[in-house]
Amino acid sequence: MKIKNRVTDLLKIQYPIIQAGMVWVSGYKLAVAVSNCGGLGLIGAGSMKPELLREHIQKAKMKTNKPFGVNIPLLREDASELIKVVIKEGVKIVFTSAGHPGKFIEELKKNNIKVIHVVPSVKYGKKAEESGCDAVVGEGYEAGGHNGFDEITTMCLIPQLVEELKIPVIAAGGIATGRQIAAALALGAEGVQIGTRFAVTDESSAHINYKLKVIEAGDNGTIIGFRKIGLVRMLKNDFSLKAVEAEKTCADEITLREIWGEKRERLGIFEGDVNEGALEAGQSAGLIKEILPVEKVFNRFIKEFDEAIESLKLMQ
Amino acid sequence: MKIKNRVTDLLKIQYPIIQAGMVWVSGYKLAVAVSNCGGLGLIGAGSMKPELLREHIQKAKMKTNKPFGVNIPLLREDASELIKVVIKEGVKIVFTSAGHPGKFIEELKKNNIKVIHVVPSVKYGKKAEESGCDAVVGEGYEAGGHNGFDEITTMCLIPQLVEELKIPVIAAGGIATGRQIAAALALGAEGVQIGTRFAVTDESSAHINYKLKVIEAGDNGTIIGFRKIGLVRMLKNDFSLKAVEAEKTCADEITLREIWGEKRERLGIFEGDVNEGALEAGQSAGLIKEILPVEKVFNRFIKEFDEAIESLKLMQ
Repeated sequence: MKIKNRVTDLLKIQYPIIQAGMVWVSGYKLAVAVSNCGGLGLIGAGSMKPELLREHIQKAKMKTNKPFGVNIPLLREDASELIKVVIKEGVKIVFTSAGHPGKFIEELKKNNIKVIHVVPSVKYGKKAEESGCDAVVGEGYEAGGHNGFDEITTMCLIPQLVEELKIPVIAAGGIATGRQIAAALALGAEGVQIGTRFAVTDESSAHINYKLKVIEAGDNGTIIGFRKIGLVRMLKNDFSLKAVEAEKTCADEITLREIWGEKRERLGIFEGDVNEGALEAGQSAGLIKEILPVEKVFNRFIKEFDEAIESLKLMQ
Repeated sequence: MKIKNRVTDLLKIQYPIIQAGMVWVSGYKLAVAVSNCGGLGLIGAGSMKPELLREHIQKAKMKTNKPFGVNIPLLREDASELIKVVIKEGVKIVFTSAGHPGKFIEELKKNNIKVIHVVPSVKYGKKAEESGCDAVVGEGYEAGGHNGFDEITTMCLIPQLVEELKIPVIAAGGIATGRQIAAALALGAEGVQIGTRFAVTDESSAHINYKLKVIEAGDNGTIIGFRKIGLVRMLKNDFSLKAVEAEKTCADEITLREIWGEKRERLGIFEGDVNEGALEAGQSAGLIKEILPVEKVFNRFIKEFDEAIESLKLMQ
């Protein structure tokens, strides 16, 4: 894999492979491990208070001199606090999601920060471009966690974003192998963002029970719950199946919020309650068979990517 | 595009590009046009009585000496009648869908017919392989028409089928460009099955209103309806949105069957009632911008495919 394109230039990285910011999963350890392999690690601020985020950034700076970034879900009430920390600590790459980047972009750009926004459709991609984002992550329906209402899959979303936008497109949703990285780049993406595969590594702070549950998942191990209040892709378990059952009998929004309750992601992903926690994961779970160190995952990506291209070359 | 693999060998075709059998869309004209370009055309028996199927097969035989096939939805009450016609007319390729191929496979194989079954998951892929099918079509959630309950997308389904099966895998769902064909082959598929793009050609028997409606669709122009009685992906219109609305208020199966009524596909796709018909189409609709002759579509596939590989080669 020898890639020099707008994404590697923008982020100053060797490989256009980005580790997704994931709640309770991607602290400094995971981010640093990915950045040290030549990709881009992201600290996921979604499950961190501003002070904890500062701590993680400071630790990351001590452990790597490679670029890394922070993912900030903009719907967080204290999003502007998180952004202040990022600026203060001199982080130069921010991935924003779940919300509109317009509100914060001026401040970020003023501080010379590259802003990449996560979008589920062409409409939001265009908005991100108009707001001044440097790139977008197009995230397909197969992705874990929170999902767009339009359910556009990676295979269909990426080529349309590439066609409609001038800024570079990074593909996300369902990607866990080097062959899929090659597929995403064939679609016109200039990089990939990978979540679940990196969640099941030694360096991920997810609970071992969560990691083992991903490995067991198989092709149909995830389900979309809470369509009415915002789609969430999770592993099937008592909790998610209860939510889906309630939706089938037309539970209203209040009931669904009650079922969701509080700290579900922490309970499942961090504390390891695989029955009652929200075990957010992508459909790529079915492709993940072992817990590995990040370096091994990375080497595999590159080997599989090269093999895929080797086989495609014979078809031309 | 120079491909010689198990799919081109099995079907005796130049390019591993198969035109999906589609109700009210793929008669002998479309199938012959695709086969004459070096792909594989399929006559869609789903909307044909046995006598009409016979007529279409006979016309196809007069118009091409290239291989073509017939798609048979096995849930049809008269599926065995359709199969009799196929055998009698000497068709040597049958694609089966919507049902279990086991019941018919012995008779088909006895008559030296290649059988390819359409599957939405690894479980059904394995069943097809065990039944003696020669290949499977793995069809992702983004595909038009009837869909699997597990909602597995093309990006995630294909690599898992390739890993779990010994027989060749053909990728379907969301594919409408040559770059996507390259992506599907990067995932390990040995061919592609393409529906909606071929439905919007001169040779397709779909109504002009249907074709124009696909062109307008955009990235979020399709929706899944009738989850309770079997998922169907259609263009958004009065009919499909009414169904989805009814489901939100928990309509039961009987009500949903009433809403579906009768001859919805014929009404929309063949008669051109774009408000009240079921306009089955894939998420790839957003990538389709014009009605073209099949030959032009085919040439574009090959050009885009070669370009995709050309750009990937530089990344190795």
